Amino acid sequence: MKRLFGTAGIRGHYPDEINPKLVINVSSGVANYFQAKKAVIGGDCRLTTPILKLSAAIGLMSQGVDVIDINLTPLPVLAWSVREFGADIGLYITASHNPPEDNGVKVFKQNGVELFEREEIEIEKLINERKLVGIANWKNTGTYMTETNVIEHYINELHNLAIVTAPKIIPKVLIDCANGPASLITPKVLTSMGAKVVSINSHIDGRFPGRSPEPRPDTLEPFTKLAQKIGVDIFFAHDGDGDRLAVVDPQRGFIKQDRLIAFFAKRYLNEKKGTVVVSIDCGYAVREVVEEMGGKLVVTKLGKTHEKLVQLSDSLMAAEPWKLIDPSWGLWTDGIYQAVMITKIMMKEGLKLYDLLKTVPDYPQARCAIRVPKGVKEKLYDYLTQYILRKVPKPKEVLTIDGMRVNEESYWILIRKSGTESKVRIYCEAKTAKELKDLVVDLLIAAKRYLRKIGVEKFEIEKAIM
Amino acid sequence: MKRLFGTAGIRGHYPDEINPKLVINVSSGVANYFQAKKAVIGGDCRLTTPILKLSAAIGLMSQGVDVIDINLTPLPVLAWSVREFGADIGLYITASHNPPEDNGVKVFKQNGVELFEREEIEIEKLINERKLVGIANWKNTGTYMTETNVIEHYINELHNLAIVTAPKIIPKVLIDCANGPASLITPKVLTSMGAKVVSINSHIDGRFPGRSPEPRPDTLEPFTKLAQKIGVDIFFAHDGDGDRLAVVDPQRGFIKQDRLIAFFAKRYLNEKKGTVVVSIDCGYAVREVVEEMGGKLVVTKLGKTHEKLVQLSDSLMAAEPWKLIDPSWGLWTDGIYQAVMITKIMMKEGLKLYDLLKTVPDYPQARCAIRVPKGVKEKLYDYLTQYILRKVPKPKEVLTIDGMRVNEESYWILIRKSGTESKVRIYCEAKTAKELKDLVVDLLIAAKRYLRKIGVEKFEIEKAIM
Amino acid sequence: MKRLFGTAGIRGHYPDEINPKLVINVSSGVANYFQAKKAVIGGDCRLTTPILKLSAAIGLMSQGVDVIDINLTPLPVLAWSVREFGADIGLYITASHNPPEDNGVKVFKQNGVELFEREEIEIEKLINERKLVGIANWKNTGTYMTETNVIEHYINELHNLAIVTAPKIIPKVLIDCANGPASLITPKVLTSMGAKVVSINSHIDGRFPGRSPEPRPDTLEPFTKLAQKIGVDIFFAHDGDGDRLAVVDPQRGFIKQDRLIAFFAKRYLNEKKGTVVVSIDCGYAVREVVEEMGGKLVVTKLGKTHEKLVQLSDSLMAAEPWKLIDPSWGLWTDGIYQAVMITKIMMKEGLKLYDLLKTVPDYPQARCAIRVPKGVKEKLYDYLTQYILRKVPKPKEVLTIDGMRVNEESYWILIRKSGTESKVRIYCEAKTAKELKDLVVDLLIAAKRYLRKIGVEKFEIEKAIM
Amino acid sequence: MKRLFGTAGIRGHYPDEINPKLVINVSSGVANYFQAKKAVIGGDCRLTTPILKLSAAIGLMSQGVDVIDINLTPLPVLAWSVREFGADIGLYITASHNPPEDNGVKVFKQNGVELFEREEIEIEKLINERKLVGIANWKNTGTYMTETNVIEHYINELHNLAIVTAPKIIPKVLIDCANGPASLITPKVLTSMGAKVVSINSHIDGRFPGRSPEPRPDTLEPFTKLAQKIGVDIFFAHDGDGDRLAVVDPQRGFIKQDRLIAFFAKRYLNEKKGTVVVSIDCGYAVREVVEEMGGKLVVTKLGKTHEKLVQLSDSLMAAEPWKLIDPSWGLWTDGIYQAVMITKIMMKEGLKLYDLLKTVPDYPQARCAIRVPKGVKEKLYDYLTQYILRKVPKPKEVLTIDGMRVNEESYWILIRKSGTESKVRIYCEAKTAKELKDLVVDLLIAAKRYLRKIGVEKFEIEKAIM
Repeated sequence: MKRLFGTAGIRGHYPDEINPKLVINVSSGVANYFQAKKAVIGGDCRLTTPILKLSAAIGLMSQGVDVIDINLTPLPVLAWSVREFGADIGLYITASHNPPEDNGVKVFKQNGVELFEREEIEIEKLINERKLVGIANWKNTGTYMTETNVIEHYINELHNLAIVTAPKIIPKVLIDCANGPASLITPKVLTSMGAKVVSINSHIDGRFPGRSPEPRPDTLEPFTKLAQKIGVDIFFAHDGDGDRLAVVDPQRGFIKQDRLIAFFAKRYLNEKKGTVVVSIDCGYAVREVVEEMGGKLVVTKLGKTHEKLVQLSDSLMAAEPWKLIDPSWGLWTDGIYQAVMITKIMMKEGLKLYDLLKTVPDYPQARCAIRVPKGVKEKLYDYLTQYILRKVPKPKEVLTIDGMRVNEESYWILIRKSGTESKVRIYCEAKTAKELKDLVVDLLIAAKRYLRKIGVEKFEIEKAIM
Repeated sequence: MKRLFGTAGIRGHYPDEINPKLVINVSSGVANYFQAKKAVIGGDCRLTTPILKLSAAIGLMSQGVDVIDINLTPLPVLAWSVREFGADIGLYITASHNPPEDNGVKVFKQNGVELFEREEIEIEKLINERKLVGIANWKNTGTYMTETNVIEHYINELHNLAIVTAPKIIPKVLIDCANGPASLITPKVLTSMGAKVVSINSHIDGRFPGRSPEPRPDTLEPFTKLAQKIGVDIFFAHDGDGDRLAVVDPQRGFIKQDRLIAFFAKRYLNEKKGTVVVSIDCGYAVREVVEEMGGKLVVTKLGKTHEKLVQLSDSLMAAEPWKLIDPSWGLWTDGIYQAVMITKIMMKEGLKLYDLLKTVPDYPQARCAIRVPKGVKEKLYDYLTQYILRKVPKPKEVLTIDGMRVNEESYWILIRKSGTESKVRIYCEAKTAKELKDLVVDLLIAAKRYLRKIGVEKFEIEKAIM
Repeated sequence: MKRLFGTAGIRGHYPDEINPKLVINVSSGVANYFQAKKAVIGGDCRLTTPILKLSAAIGLMSQGVDVIDINLTPLPVLAWSVREFGADIGLYITASHNPPEDNGVKVFKQNGVELFEREEIEIEKLINERKLVGIANWKNTGTYMTETNVIEHYINELHNLAIVTAPKIIPKVLIDCANGPASLITPKVLTSMGAKVVSINSHIDGRFPGRSPEPRPDTLEPFTKLAQKIGVDIFFAHDGDGDRLAVVDPQRGFIKQDRLIAFFAKRYLNEKKGTVVVSIDCGYAVREVVEEMGGKLVVTKLGKTHEKLVQLSDSLMAAEPWKLIDPSWGLWTDGIYQAVMITKIMMKEGLKLYDLLKTVPDYPQARCAIRVPKGVKEKLYDYLTQYILRKVPKPKEVLTIDGMRVNEESYWILIRKSGTESKVRIYCEAKTAKELKDLVVDLLIAAKRYLRKIGVEKFEIEKAIM
Repeated sequence: MKRLFGTAGIRGHYPDEINPKLVINVSSGVANYFQAKKAVIGGDCRLTTPILKLSAAIGLMSQGVDVIDINLTPLPVLAWSVREFGADIGLYITASHNPPEDNGVKVFKQNGVELFEREEIEIEKLINERKLVGIANWKNTGTYMTETNVIEHYINELHNLAIVTAPKIIPKVLIDCANGPASLITPKVLTSMGAKVVSINSHIDGRFPGRSPEPRPDTLEPFTKLAQKIGVDIFFAHDGDGDRLAVVDPQRGFIKQDRLIAFFAKRYLNEKKGTVVVSIDCGYAVREVVEEMGGKLVVTKLGKTHEKLVQLSDSLMAAEPWKLIDPSWGLWTDGIYQAVMITKIMMKEGLKLYDLLKTVPDYPQARCAIRVPKGVKEKLYDYLTQYILRKVPKPKEVLTIDGMRVNEESYWILIRKSGTESKVRIYCEAKTAKELKDLVVDLLIAAKRYLRKIGVEKFEIEKAIM
């Protein structure tokens, strides 16, 4: 049975992979599993989001769930609304940074927490084995209500948290909203704090005309020049649904996600000791900062740092690259909150971005993926992990939580099978660019040699050095 | 293949006979058949209306139709909105005067005209033979928009039509809105005309707590006493979705629908000669008035007077009991408009209801239904029609448009098989109550005798004399 | 300087006594006095309420206050919203049960408490002495936002409080909403509890066409007959803005407000001992019940029971006839809450209204007013108080909190000067109808004799015996 | 008596020059003058717009006018709505491209036409002489309604006009919305036509953080670089309220407004002969094009081209720099419509901007202003006009419609006293840059010499050469 839920919820191409029927089934299943009475629904600006959001409403109402529709908002606002309205569940229609022809569903439970893996599996069972409780009768059918001011209330709450009474600087900010619903919030809340805000790609359009909804260094490049020209202190960029934030130094370029995680970890640990939960692909910058500050680091699977965060009583934050959760604000990933917090710190401490990040290590990283024909993924994975263990016979540390990660003094390598595609992924970090390059080249040569040996001619290598 | 469309659209018990899946199919089918680009949707106040209305939205949007949702309004406002917004189609969720556990769909095409019979058959084919065009791609998926002020604009237009500059009387009106959405309109527009309006059952509740949504003489009885007590000039009562209007004289009681039809026919013919389209069960009052005024009467099937109305170039109005269409206002049945027009005439001419109706004949009528086991309906129908033709060997006129109607000088009888239930219906009118009673008793005795003869013991007779 | 605030806020005839300019001034003054940052505004259904509500918005915004407009709601929902939104102040446009050509303003502070007398005086000073702080500059001008679902959230909260899990009876209720905004709430929340609800005068119209907005025995009379005819268990009737509730027993008629106060006092004291705050015109029924239950009774001025309620730490409730505050729900008068609580008790205990009230004494009462020429009010008041003290030389108890009240064993008399009109008011209660009549006749004869003696020929006596 | 209406409606600094009281007066006066029954109100995104828009509502309602509030929209949408709703008048709160601390009112009459000069004067009289009819009574007070989908309907109508069935090119467009409400429309409608749209300054903020709301060459400069970098075909920029449009060629820079006027005039005259109305400061490009195409040119005062447009039966368009009216679309200035039309022509004809404008002459222009102390404006104006007439004793043509304009073969000069400030304005155009410079330098030297001669030491010269 094909899995419905991937590492980032349910996603696919419309209408063949994701469509009203599937969403009605999923929402009915979620309603059933949680015995929900009240749900919040919303979605991003994709052209197929309205039809799928209404499909979610129908699935929920048919099971007797009262639905509050908050319409077009960023993803974090949906999660926040689940808490705000005391709802049992929340469904958000989005395909995050996927291309405009895709769409998907993200499911939240009480307080805006994403599903645990076990829950996803149980819900899939309910749906696939058609064990859904039958449709509610006419008297118990759920009601439907739209809420219009959710964004204003979210902004107010965030503003009250962020306001700095006597700011040492008034930062000038360029914000790129990826033509997504964060356009309605991030410029407004930063302005309310006193920052000077120029925006780009902040008219809402689900075709994402301004750039790819993925805020990568390459997609942000043309606007970085504008950031320099108009003389801003910092350049923020969202993904399509606003749970992610890219931070760019107009003079020095894109800031690695690892460093942002380390930056926040350092601050939280400075206030209070406790645990920082990170995903398996986090780099040494985070690890070193946490150790330096006397905190505890817990490493877990990709896409599931929220599980550990909720389970551990002393957790201070959870993070994987692009997904940072600060439980003092909320139990969800929130790119808007991140932008607000960085701006607040700048204003409060009177520091520029470069100075803020000065004490956070910056190690070169590489992310590669080898696309292979079906059936080869497992073989290649096995080969590469064995290859590494042969090369590093006495590794300092080996983690097998999610793929295999080998930690050495001056570098680390992580090999993973993709959860959704026929790919093997290689993550690598070293203390110097030279060492990193050597490591990557060696691994890729080994992979190519192996693939040819077993007769695989068609494969493709994607490579990004940061 | 079971017919989807009955004499009054698609109706049934929720969720077994009518449910989201069915409505998605129907709306997709209608969208397909009419190659629609723009649709208006709405519905009554039943508890299952929101889920079914959103299902209609999904069916339409999936076929690339842009949807305007006008939410809770009376049925005539939906039809009016189809014209107002220049939409290709309109879908309204209602089961009219059925009990609260039922629901259904009414379909309108351009200008608010209900479907023709041929169109219903074609759409059923599309749906049943799964010949629907596939779901639209992401770029062509329909949009969804809600409109909030439709009711205000409808009221304005009606007000402008109805306002009397120097009214001769200020009528006091009791209006019973059946706990339906007409609560939002009829009291308001009558008040805007200057009438004094007291209302009953005008909080909106899809459980219909005040009375059955069918405004029959028996269900209105308790409130007629109130009408007397507070001294109103006229008592109006709507059905659940506002396309029907009952008119009650506080002193003299319920006015027959036939007389209302005759009343309006007389007025229209007074202004202009032309054709009046009526259903087969209309009485001699209408016929006599039309003849007296030099108009032409065209008799057609139940539920399809709108077809002839649209097809004939000189038609002045179309009517069957409870369904009156005045094309100078719109091509749909509109109980609100009826209440407004009667009030306007009272104000303009300074007449009480009794005086207004004085010149319209009032003949006693009976409506009976014999519920029989499955398979017997046809036999009983055949027997009764033969029985009548034996008794009246040289009838003055026989009509077989819809069942068999025999017209004699002083009475007429109509025998019909019910379109939706296992019943034979008998309609009868005579010039005197005595003659009517004799006719009905004779027919019912004949029917009972026949049923026993063929061994049917279980049958049930419903009888109403008006 | 004429007082702005009367016993029930600011009220008068539109546009000569109350108009946009006055409301802009009052709202500016209130904003100033409380140094408010956030305000909620709303109003009843009067035809001049929208213009005055927007005037309130302008006064507030001009002083830098952010305004949340909840539009048309009953008065208690406005008070509830002040608490719900954490606002500093709330302004509600209404003239309560005054005729439709009047209007006014009610002011609330934090948590929905009405103004204290001292605050009213200070605000009047600010306005009259033009000591208002100048209008805010462009950057600090207040914002304006409308909230649409306040009624739904209020209903939800009330429903959760009121729901009875295993009701012993399902009461049938007739509710008369006075054509006011309670039409949107009371029927809905009673229905959600499971009651069967028939409604009258529940279409909203600020001309109050169904009856006077004051729910007196005489104005409710025609509908009491309907209550009998359709066989309801209880008949509730609101005033124009929903802070008041009349309760009628369909068989036995109008229930005295004193008995309702006593009824609630008994129940609260049954759960917990404490103080019951009542106004000076409350009867012996309340006193006896409080004593019987071991509670403490505090008597205070008309229109200001909320002051004592807030000031005393052990207060259980505050009440004057028509104005009952239960602090466990909220610090405002709420006729909707009262209807809900009575219905809840009926459902929980399986009792009819008559049985519920059986243990609450029922003493006959009279309320008279003598309208005299200007300047005579004081003289007549002095004469009557002296007259009583002469007739009852050793009274059991004399209270002079608000006028003069003499308490004897079997009766009490209260003489007051009207706060707003040229009238002297006489309140009287006795154990028997005979005794009451004797007392009233004697006082009125004395008054007439005195007036003639001092040469006053023009006076008018209003009399109501209950 | 100080004039209220300037060349662009009523404008000033908040709250000293423009405030709620003034706007209540103005709206009452306008309501009175036009005996209005229905009005539409709206406004731009300035922080004081909501309070002033509600003030307009109050003024109108107090005079018995029913108000439709369309809230935040660009100015052209308000004008369009006046026509769409069949309103008698429309009021729009804006200070156009003035700084954020200013605000103002623009008044429209039926069909979205701005006031005629005579009407402004009459309304000023009504207000200043306190001849306003008194406030309406409670029954006649105006109603207030908000309309939410106006923008969608405007976009639909514009889309239907603009859609090109088989476009020859798909232009890539950069649009700068000046942080104003055009953000909600222009990107959307251009996208709906098929264009690729990147936007800048399209989050709405009445502080105008992205740039000055005036789209001058200098304020647009940083974004022109972005336009080049991302490779767009055309760069559009709005002013704060969207009635103006700047057009920039990414490679060649800012297009003169005169050339845009000439461009449109040429196209209209190509379809039909008739009159083109222009303001006194239009250049020879327009004149030459109109002559070449066989049209008629009518020259009129600044700010009042709409008067002539409406009065002349054969007028094809009216224009002054930044204000272009195409009566085939509507009788108002519409920067959104302009952007749409230019894009449509590009798509239909497959031409780039440079090619489109190739046949329109491009003559260098200068605009100067000399700010002088109060009382000197008139003297300097008189001196300069005499100076010119001395230098050009036999001018080819002299126009004195609004200031004095002298037309010679190869150049023209216009001298005007500013209507709102203590300035004398000099407009000048020549066939070559050299000739233009000589003319300007000569005039400025003459002016300076004169000022010193009469003892004026403090003056200021603003100069812009285009």
